[in-house]
Formats: sequence, structure tokens, C-alpha cells
Amino acid sequence: MRFLSEGKALELAQALLGAGGLKPGPALVVAQHLVDANMKGVDSHGLERIPQYLQKIAEGRVEAGAEPEVASVHDGIVQVRGHGGLGIPAMQLAAERLAPLAHERGIAAATVTDVAHTGRIGRYVETLALSGCFAFAFGGGAYRQGGRVAPFGGSRGVLSTNPYALALPGGSLGPVVVDFATSTLAQGKLAAARLRGTPLPEDAVIDREGRPSTAAEDFYEGGALLPAAGPKGYGMALIAELIGSALIGDPKEFNWLIVALDLARFRPPAAFAAAAEDCLREVKAVPPREGFDEVMIPGEPERRCMAARAVSGIPLDAVLERRLREAGESLRLDLDAFLAG
Amino acid sequence: MRFLSEGKALELAQALLGAGGLKPGPALVVAQHLVDANMKGVDSHGLERIPQYLQKIAEGRVEAGAEPEVASVHDGIVQVRGHGGLGIPAMQLAAERLAPLAHERGIAAATVTDVAHTGRIGRYVETLALSGCFAFAFGGGAYRQGGRVAPFGGSRGVLSTNPYALALPGGSLGPVVVDFATSTLAQGKLAAARLRGTPLPEDAVIDREGRPSTAAEDFYEGGALLPAAGPKGYGMALIAELIGSALIGDPKEFNWLIVALDLARFRPPAAFAAAAEDCLREVKAVPPREGFDEVMIPGEPERRCMAARAVSGIPLDAVLERRLREAGESLRLDLDAFLAG
Repeated sequence: MRFLSEGKALELAQALLGAGGLKPGPALVVAQHLVDANMKGVDSHGLERIPQYLQKIAEGRVEAGAEPEVASVHDGIVQVRGHGGLGIPAMQLAAERLAPLAHERGIAAATVTDVAHTGRIGRYVETLALSGCFAFAFGGGAYRQGGRVAPFGGSRGVLSTNPYALALPGGSLGPVVVDFATSTLAQGKLAAARLRGTPLPEDAVIDREGRPSTAAEDFYEGGALLPAAGPKGYGMALIAELIGSALIGDPKEFNWLIVALDLARFRPPAAFAAAAEDCLREVKAVPPREGFDEVMIPGEPERRCMAARAVSGIPLDAVLERRLREAGESLRLDLDAFLAG
Repeated sequence: MRFLSEGKALELAQALLGAGGLKPGPALVVAQHLVDANMKGVDSHGLERIPQYLQKIAEGRVEAGAEPEVASVHDGIVQVRGHGGLGIPAMQLAAERLAPLAHERGIAAATVTDVAHTGRIGRYVETLALSGCFAFAFGGGAYRQGGRVAPFGGSRGVLSTNPYALALPGGSLGPVVVDFATSTLAQGKLAAARLRGTPLPEDAVIDREGRPSTAAEDFYEGGALLPAAGPKGYGMALIAELIGSALIGDPKEFNWLIVALDLARFRPPAAFAAAAEDCLREVKAVPPREGFDEVMIPGEPERRCMAARAVSGIPLDAVLERRLREAGESLRLDLDAFLAG
């Protein structure tokens, strides 16, 4: 297995994205986002997205040269438009504009529209948590494009995986970053199970007739994902679909809402951090159940992985290396310089 | 089975709560809240709460004569204090003050502290949805009082059922009201299963050793509820615990955060309603799975029940009637006048 340092991975990602037509600013933001995901162990949202992004650009489904824009700031609401580009720079811009607005006004919101894939949503709420906010974000609105998640009690897909993310600072044990799909599984896990032929957990998907199945193939042959925790995940997904479509307008993929609340309006940050640590320590002190080594705070596995990969580098398996090289070749970019050492 | 009209139920509830020491204003708000829950079929949050509330008052755990107060309004944040009383009047006050603030500022938040039981959380976000907002609310902070929900991977309880509610208007198919515990089950379902000796669903609770169990008794003998959808419910619960304790201060039971976003900042209400109806119709058009009659919009079962009970009245079974009569007797209140006809 080859390992890439964070710096080399950043150079590689920027070179590929730049060769694909991204302007230097957005290329840097996207490269930083993907490499950050790899450093945190969220490899499904790391470098392996680059071939997919370049493919979408080549097919004209993503505007390579787009730069996000703050379309308006009225009262407590920032509206950011992505102009059809990758969603990562638009979400990052929204988070960066939202933080000072929340500090100024106590609470503020941002919407992000006309964007393709937005990467790891946890990163944007984490950015806001690091600036002293409670933040949450969710995306949706793609129901007209053929959703693949069934409503509770339904036999076929209409909703999407409609992700939610929530974050808070947590003193030395934070930030606490919660980031999940409102369906039983994210689509990446289905793809992995299909590739390897491994069975899915019970009650995760239904086949095209609406019957429970543990075969990923049944999902791809007209089946659907089920909502997480039945009516709970369904309700959250429906809210995200309504906000993403009926409120913010027709989305390219998803539209997004981000809300940030200034914590300093309630307590000085150091007092909050100390009290949060108390709570987090109580939670971590719970003895693990069989099958677990310890109770983890949401965001903690990612921080541990980051510390480990700062030493080891980012693992690059043969499949990913080949896919990146092929993407490079199609853009006449030789990756040897980035992959050596 | 006896049936009570909505009007009779309101008179009965007000009389009992008033005899228990609530002032007329809060007694009316609590009575309306409980009867509304019964009308909507959420009987676990209806009249059957009255004996419990009166018991807590008698034990000095709830301040009967408390009236909630708006402690401050700074920027986009309303802080409401309950002064140790039932939480329903405080939550209602917070929702009523939050709606105009959200309309004025685009987005606003309310906190509610020093309150006992807050009833059906869905009602407060529904109130805000009816005023043209997207609203969400959650409560927590009781981890020091011995939580009964295990963190993901943990073998004993430390978190609580930490409820979340989200709501949006939905035109003629709304409001959409999502209201759930972040644990696998609400505590009311455990109590019912214990009473009847019926088994719980798989993977809902663990016993005192952290082993999976389907016996409600194992929960009551030192076991714990599991978080809904594993890390998802755990993450949401932990955020609510941190906000409810580390941010807003030590709670009496739970502290609460409510956020409201003015939808008219994005689209005229009629345009939003039409677009929301389109989405909701698509969702309702999904054929049901085996075991379901149809796909329902969150909030729809409650509206149907309300229409039915407007005709039939609220069912009052022998157990509940006896409990209410006993509560009345202990306060020298004869309920015959309310229960006749």
C-alpha cells in the first residue's frame, strides 16, 4: 500500500482539479476538503471523489469554472449561489459568511443553491462550531429527480438520503460533530456491498416489490433504501426535501440550509467548554457493550485518525491509484511527480 | 367506554389543575394542551398526565402557582423562565414570542429553562409552522439526574430520550409535524409493555449487564434504552444534552431550544404552500408496503384523529376515569358534573 503525505495529496488533488478546469481558488478549497476527509478517515468523501467529479465535468453536468457567489444578505439570512459548480466551495463560503453574521445577530442562516456534490457536510458545521456556534445543516429537494429512499410505509423510493449534520464545540473533547444520512445506509455503503457481494443489514433496503432484502443488488434493480428508525428518519428527510425544493427552489442535486447560533450570547466560551467537557466525560465513562472497545464522542474517531495519518500519511490502494492515474491521463497530466515519495 | 366532548374535557382539566393550585391562566393553557393531545390521538400526552402533574405538585417537585416569564429578548434570542412550574405554559409563551421575532429578523431562537414536563413538543413547532415558519425544538441536559438512554456502544444509561420536533406548513396537506424521541422508544411505550407483559421490539433496550433484551422489566431493573438508529440518535441526543446543560444551565428536567425561520423571506407563503403540496402529493402517491394501508404525512394521523374525535369525543377508559376521580377526591373536587353527559 502506498501512503501519501497530506501535502502531496493536496498537490495531487489541486493538479487534477485544475487540469479538469477548476479555477485555482475553488480547486484549492475542494482539494483541502477532500484531503481533510481522507485525513479524518472518511475515505468515501476523499480523493476517490475526484474521478467522479472530473467525469461529471466532462459530461457537462458540473460547471468546471464556476465560482460561488453571495447573492444576498438580508437580515439574518445569507443566500449563496453555486452557479452549477461543485458544491464544496459554495458551502465553505456560506459557512465563512454565516459565522460573523451569527455572532453579530445571535442567530443566522444560510442557504446554498445551484450546486453539485457538497462533500462531507460535517466539515461546514465543524467550521462553525470552531468559531463558537451551535450549527446544523441539511440538504434535499431532489424528489423530482427520482429519489431512492422510501417514505415510512411506502414500497418505493421518492426521498433521498437527505443528510443532516450538527456540531458544537466541546472543549478538549470537541468539537462534537454529528453527520449522518436519514436513510438506513448512505449510498456509498450500498455500492461497497454490491462490489463485494456482502449482505446488507436486515431492514436496510427493500426490493422493487417493496419486500425486505439483504442483497444490495435488489436496491439497484428498482428497490429502495428505508428511512433510518422508520418514521424518525422519514420525518427528517421529508422536512429536508420540502425546504430544499418548496422553499429554496429547484435544486441541481440538493439545496442546503445551514443555521448557526452564537453560543457566547448564553455563556462565556470558556465556561461553556468546561461544562461541555463535564458532560462528555460522563458519557465517555460509560463502560462499553460487548463488541465495542469504548464509547466515542461523535467526531472523536475522525480526530484519532487524523493524528494517525499525520504520521502514516493517507493510504492509497491500488484501485484508487489506478483510477487517479487514469483520470490524470485523460487530462494529459502525469501523476508520477505527485506519487513519488 | 365513556366519551367526553372537547369542551367537557377542557372544563374537567381546568377544574382539576385549578384545584391543584395552578393559576387560571396556566391552568387554561395546560388544559388546552392536554385536550389537544387527546383530540389528536396522542393520549399518552393527554388527560392521563393530570394525576402525574398533581402528584408532583403534592410532592413539592413542581411549583403549582408558577407563571412563566420572558426573562430577556436580546437580538434574535428570547429567554423564557418557567420558575419551576409545569413546562407547557413556558413553551407556549416561548413559541408565541418567537413567531413575531422570527418574522421581524428572518430567524430567531428561544430558550426555556426551569420547567417540569413540557407536554407534546410537536405542538410548539406546529404553532410556529402555522405562523409561517420552519421551526425545530429539542430538549435535554438531565444527564446528572441519571439518564436512561445508553450512548452508542455503551452498556448503561446516561443520556435521555431527548426529543426533537420539526415542523413546516404544507398547504392543504400540512402542517408537517415531526416529533420523536432520539431513543428507540419513548418511556411511555416501555411502561405500557411492562403493564401488559408484551415483548419489546428487538434492539430497543439492554439489561443491566448491557445485553440485548426484549423484556421491559429488564429496562426497569437497571437496564437502558438504546439510541434510535445507533450513532444517529446518539449524536442528536448528545447535542441536546450539551445545549440543555452546558449552554443554557442546569435544568429542572430538561432545558429547551426552539429555532424559527421566517419562510416569507424566501417565497410568498402561497407559492411555498403550492410547491410543498406538490412534494407531499408525490410522497403520498407511493404505494404502501405490506402491512401498511397508505403512506402518511407526519401530522396527518393526528389531523384525522382530530376530525373523528370532534364527532365521537375523547375516549375515557375505566382506568383513566378512576385515576382522574381519585385525583379529584384527593383535592375535594367531585367530577360527576364534568363526567355526566
